[in-house]
Amino acid sequence: MYQIDLNSDMGESFGAYKIGNDEGIIQYVTSANIACGYHAGDPMVMDKVVRMAQERGVAVGAHPGYPDLMGFGRRKMVLSPTEVKNCMKYQIGALWAFAHSRGMKLQHVAPHGALGNLCQYDRETSRAICEAVYEIDPSILIFYCAGAVLGEEAEKMGLKTASEIFADRAYMDDLSLVPRSRPDSMITDEDLAVERCIRMVKEGKVTTVTGQDVDIRGDTLCVHGDGAKALAFVERIRAAFQEEGIQIRNFLA
Amino acid sequence: MYQIDLNSDMGESFGAYKIGNDEGIIQYVTSANIACGYHAGDPMVMDKVVRMAQERGVAVGAHPGYPDLMGFGRRKMVLSPTEVKNCMKYQIGALWAFAHSRGMKLQHVAPHGALGNLCQYDRETSRAICEAVYEIDPSILIFYCAGAVLGEEAEKMGLKTASEIFADRAYMDDLSLVPRSRPDSMITDEDLAVERCIRMVKEGKVTTVTGQDVDIRGDTLCVHGDGAKALAFVERIRAAFQEEGIQIRNFLA
Amino acid sequence: MYQIDLNSDMGESFGAYKIGNDEGIIQYVTSANIACGYHAGDPMVMDKVVRMAQERGVAVGAHPGYPDLMGFGRRKMVLSPTEVKNCMKYQIGALWAFAHSRGMKLQHVAPHGALGNLCQYDRETSRAICEAVYEIDPSILIFYCAGAVLGEEAEKMGLKTASEIFADRAYMDDLSLVPRSRPDSMITDEDLAVERCIRMVKEGKVTTVTGQDVDIRGDTLCVHGDGAKALAFVERIRAAFQEEGIQIRNFLA
Amino acid sequence: MYQIDLNSDMGESFGAYKIGNDEGIIQYVTSANIACGYHAGDPMVMDKVVRMAQERGVAVGAHPGYPDLMGFGRRKMVLSPTEVKNCMKYQIGALWAFAHSRGMKLQHVAPHGALGNLCQYDRETSRAICEAVYEIDPSILIFYCAGAVLGEEAEKMGLKTASEIFADRAYMDDLSLVPRSRPDSMITDEDLAVERCIRMVKEGKVTTVTGQDVDIRGDTLCVHGDGAKALAFVERIRAAFQEEGIQIRNFLA
Repeated sequence: MYQIDLNSDMGESFGAYKIGNDEGIIQYVTSANIACGYHAGDPMVMDKVVRMAQERGVAVGAHPGYPDLMGFGRRKMVLSPTEVKNCMKYQIGALWAFAHSRGMKLQHVAPHGALGNLCQYDRETSRAICEAVYEIDPSILIFYCAGAVLGEEAEKMGLKTASEIFADRAYMDDLSLVPRSRPDSMITDEDLAVERCIRMVKEGKVTTVTGQDVDIRGDTLCVHGDGAKALAFVERIRAAFQEEGIQIRNFLA
Repeated sequence: MYQIDLNSDMGESFGAYKIGNDEGIIQYVTSANIACGYHAGDPMVMDKVVRMAQERGVAVGAHPGYPDLMGFGRRKMVLSPTEVKNCMKYQIGALWAFAHSRGMKLQHVAPHGALGNLCQYDRETSRAICEAVYEIDPSILIFYCAGAVLGEEAEKMGLKTASEIFADRAYMDDLSLVPRSRPDSMITDEDLAVERCIRMVKEGKVTTVTGQDVDIRGDTLCVHGDGAKALAFVERIRAAFQEEGIQIRNFLA
Repeated sequence: MYQIDLNSDMGESFGAYKIGNDEGIIQYVTSANIACGYHAGDPMVMDKVVRMAQERGVAVGAHPGYPDLMGFGRRKMVLSPTEVKNCMKYQIGALWAFAHSRGMKLQHVAPHGALGNLCQYDRETSRAICEAVYEIDPSILIFYCAGAVLGEEAEKMGLKTASEIFADRAYMDDLSLVPRSRPDSMITDEDLAVERCIRMVKEGKVTTVTGQDVDIRGDTLCVHGDGAKALAFVERIRAAFQEEGIQIRNFLA
Repeated sequence: MYQIDLNSDMGESFGAYKIGNDEGIIQYVTSANIACGYHAGDPMVMDKVVRMAQERGVAVGAHPGYPDLMGFGRRKMVLSPTEVKNCMKYQIGALWAFAHSRGMKLQHVAPHGALGNLCQYDRETSRAICEAVYEIDPSILIFYCAGAVLGEEAEKMGLKTASEIFADRAYMDDLSLVPRSRPDSMITDEDLAVERCIRMVKEGKVTTVTGQDVDIRGDTLCVHGDGAKALAFVERIRAAFQEEGIQIRNFLA
C-alpha cells in the first residue's frame, strides 16, 4: 500500500504583511510547516494557522529558520552548531505552545530556506538541528529534502524521518535541486510533473537532469498555494495519487 | 510553618550584551524569572540560565515582556488582549523548550516591566496573560505583584498564584509601589527592609508610605544580584529568614 | 490660483513582504511619504522607491514611525520626547542617504500611524518631531493632518507646513477623523468625496459629521493605490482638480 | 612630519545594554567609529556619542555592520552587493543625521565585524561599500585594515583612505591578522607593541608572525577603552608617539 503526505510552508505572514495563501492551501495538504517568528511568522499568525490546521485535521510542524526577517531566512548566516541548536529549540518551543494549547502534537520539524539548504551537505548543522528536536521530543519527525545528509544524521540519532520531494523541480544526480539560475531547473510540463511524482512514490526512482535514473525516497510532497494555477495543480496531483491507489495522509493519521 | 520563595529576574543578557549577574544571584534564589527573547534574552542565554538553574536546584519560570528590545520592555505598548495572549504563548513556549529539554517543568510566569505594571490594574490584559498560561498548562503559577488585579484574575480562572513582595520598595495604600520619581520610593535602611520583609511574611502586614498598616500577602520575594552590595543584602535577608524560622523554598519543592 | 499636492504612503514593503502598489500610485502623486525601516520599509525598498520617484519627478519625504515592525507602527508606544526626537533623526537620516545619493532633496516629513495620531493633540511629541526636522534641515516641510497640533508647533518653530486632507474620511468638528469604528467614518459616495475635496481646497471649508461647516486648510491630499478602484478614484480626482483650475504640484516645483 | 590618528569603536551600547567605555576612551582618541543601529547602537546612543565627540573635538565616522544585533555583526551573512550597498547607505545616513544636526561632518566609514573581515579579500563587497560612500559624499574617507582589498577598491574609485593598524595583534605575511584561535595572535608585551606601532608609522614596516619584515601603511591606530589596563595602554602609546614626534590628529584637523 503506497502513501504520501502533502505538506506546504505556511504561517509566513508577519504583522500587516501577508505572504502565501494559507486559507487556500490548508484545504489540500495533510501537513503544515509553520514559520516560527525568526525568518517569518508572528504569534498572531502562528495561532491562526494552528487553529486552521486543527479545524481541517492537518498535522502541524515547525518550520524554523535563521533570525533574519529582512532576508526571509534565505540568506546564509554563519552560526555555530550550538547557536543553531538553541535557535531551533526556541522556535520549536514557541510553536509548541500554540499546538499544545489546542491539544495538538508537533508532528515534525522542517528547516527553512538557507538553513534547509545547508542541511543538504552540512552534517554538523544537521546534527545540531536533530539534537534540538531529540532533546525536546524524540517522537517528532525530521522532514529533509530527499538526498540531504540531514536525513542520515536524524536516523543515526534515532529520529524518525520523512523524505521530502518536489513536483516542479529537476534533480541533479546527487538529488540536490538544480539551481533556479539554470534554465532546466523547473519541471514545467504538468503531465510530466505528475508522472514523476507517482514514480517517485511507487518506484522510488527519479530521472535526473543528466538523464540518469536514481533512487529517491518520497514520503512527503511539498506543494504551494500561491495563485489559482498552483492550487489547481495541487487538486490535480491529489486526484492522480488517488487514481493510482496512493493514500494521501500525514504521519499522525 | 512560614515559608518564602526568593526570585530574581535573570537571563536578560542578549548576544554580546550582558545585563545582571546571573552567576552570582543564582546561588541565592529558589526561583528564576527568565527573559524569553522579546524584551531581553536570546536562545543562548536562555539555555545557559536554565542549565545553571538545574545545577543549583532553582525552579524556572517565564518572564515575558513586550516585543521591544530597544526599550527593554519598559515602554508601555498598546496591544490588544489577543496580541498579549499570543505574545505570552510564544515566549512561554520558547522557554518551555529549554526547560523541557532538561526534564524541568515551568514553575511560573511573571510578566516583565511595563506589561507587569499594567497588570496592577488592567483586568483585560491580566486575563489575557492568564488565558495563555491556562491553555498551555494550568498547573503553572502566576507571580503577581502584591495588590495587582493579575492575582485576582488568575485565581478566578483557577490558576495558582504567588504574591510577590519587595524588600527595598515603599508601598502606597493600595499596595502599588511608590513611583521611583518620589524621594520616599525606596527603603534604604537595610535593618528596616529586613524587618518589613519578615513582618510581611509572618504577619501579612506592611506599613505604607502614609503610615497605615495594610494587609499584604508575601509568597515570593524579589531580589537583585547587581553589585556586591545587592548580593550581601540577599545573604543577610536569607540569614534573617532562617533565624525567624521562615523556610526558604520554591513552589515545586 | 489654487493648487494641491497629491501624496501617498509608499515604500512600506519589507524584505520578501510586499504592501501597497508603489508602481501604480507613483504615476499619480506629486509627493511620496517613504517608510524608513522602523514600522516598515528596508534599505532595498527605500532605494527602489526613491529611484522611482526621481524617474517620475515625484518629491520624496520621510514617513517615520514607531520601532514596531510587528505592529506596522499602528500600536501606540510610550516614548519620551527625546526618544521620539532621536528615532525621527535616525529614520530621516536613513532616507536622506538614498535621496541625496540621487541628488534629491527631502521635501517633507510626515509621521506615520500611531505616532501620527498622537500628533493630533500631543504638543510635546509634536515638538520632538519638529526639533528633529529643524536640527537636520529647517527647510524640510512638516506634513500634518488638518487640525493637528503638530501644524501649530511646527509653525511656532519656524518650519513650513502642509495641511493634509482626506477625500474618503469624515471629519469631527475639531477636524479629527471620525473613528473607523463608527458607521459614518467613511465618505463612500465618490461624487461627494470629489466635491468635498474641491471645496476644501478652494473655499477652505468642510462639512463635519455633525453638519457644521468648519474651516480647513488643504495643501496636500492623501491618496491610496491599493486596488484598481483606488487608482481609478485618483485618476478621477486629478481630472476634477484640473477642470476646476486647481494646479496639481508638490512644494518643490 | 609623521602623524597618526587614534580611532576606537564606539556607540555600541543598545537600549538598556551597555558595551564599552565611551566616556573613558573618548578622552584619548581623535576619531570615533560609531555603530549605526544594525549590529549595535540605537538613536539615543548615537546622539550621545556624537555629542561627546563634538565636545572633545573628536571626528566622527560610521561603523556600519550586518543587520544582526543578536550576533553583534560578528556572524558572516551572505548579502548581495546591492544589499550591502543599501545597508551601508541606510546606516551612514542615519548617523549623518546626528552629526549634521550638530554641524559636524562625517569623516569616515569603517565597516564592522564580519563585514569588515570580508573586506580583507572580497572585492565585490568592498566595491559595494565604496559605492555607497561615494554616492553619499565622495569626500568621506574609507578606513580599511592594512592589507585589505577594501583600500585598493576605494582608491580606484577615487575615495581617500586611511590604513588602520593594531598595536596588540600579530600579522600574517599578507597583513591579515593572525586568527585569535592561534596562541601567537596577540602582542602581549606592551614595550614591543609600542615599538611596533612607532615602526609601522615611521618606517612603514612590520615584522610578521613568520619573522619577515613587510611593508605596512599606518594612518590610524585602533585602540580600546575596556578596562583600566586598556586605557593605561592608550595613554602610554600617546606619550610614546609624542616623544617620537609623531603628531596625533584626525583627518579633518
